Amino acid sequence: MSFTPIEIEYLRSQPIGRLATSQPGGTLQNNPVGFRYNPELGTIDITGYRMANSSKFRNVGDNQRVAFVVDDIISTKPWRVRCLEIRGVGEALDPATDPAAGSDDAAAIIRIHPRRIISFGLEVPDLEPHRLVASKRDVS
Amino acid sequence: MSFTPIEIEYLRSQPIGRLATSQPGGTLQNNPVGFRYNPELGTIDITGYRMANSSKFRNVGDNQRVAFVVDDIISTKPWRVRCLEIRGVGEALDPATDPAAGSDDAAAIIRIHPRRIISFGLEVPDLEPHRLVASKRDVS
Repeated sequence: MSFTPIEIEYLRSQPIGRLATSQPGGTLQNNPVGFRYNPELGTIDITGYRMANSSKFRNVGDNQRVAFVVDDIISTKPWRVRCLEIRGVGEALDPATDPAAGSDDAAAIIRIHPRRIISFGLEVPDLEPHRLVASKRDVS
Repeated sequence: MSFTPIEIEYLRSQPIGRLATSQPGGTLQNNPVGFRYNPELGTIDITGYRMANSSKFRNVGDNQRVAFVVDDIISTKPWRVRCLEIRGVGEALDPATDPAAGSDDAAAIIRIHPRRIISFGLEVPDLEPHRLVASKRDVS
């Protein structure tokens, strides 16, 4: 699997993340979204009200480009932000129009297949912030 | 100015936002960042430790593509998220190498010039969430 146990625990602890997508013309979007880690597939599954009608869903259907980030502030003095960024290939799945995407009463989702994971501050919460180094790795 | 008083108040109330940028090859990035609203210019100025050496700074220098979002969860039952998304043109400013970018001991920043603003849930906090409509407008 792509994620470490600490990263999976972190994903499960956070209520929302932010999803960057790219419109067909190249303009970027960035949206807060609900999500869940899918342990069977090792993916991030993004949910949302009227997902299939959203521009982010159309963007992913057009070019599959996504970057998703989950973060939180654990201290302001000193300033300390943890985050987990996932760059990958997005899949726009709508069971209402595509039987292969699931039962037809299931909700549409954007599924992120991770290609690169960047984790910051999750493993060593007590280290002085400016000494923290991001963990970056390619995954498949 | 591009932002309404309520949007400016909201920007000032939030400690971080998330910045989407695009690498030269088209891969997207999404990073939590500190920021301030710049009232003189009507821009969002993004700051950060070692900003000039960051890949987001290089991305903006390459193609100027940015989408920035500030959000918060004000209720989980019912589920209620407010957000302000800003799509625009990014400028990578490094006073250490460019005298026009400011005094040479000032920090490097990414400056966002808004082109489109999408505001959700800021004006009518008590409306039933699924009846909320995003306010979207082009600005210059």
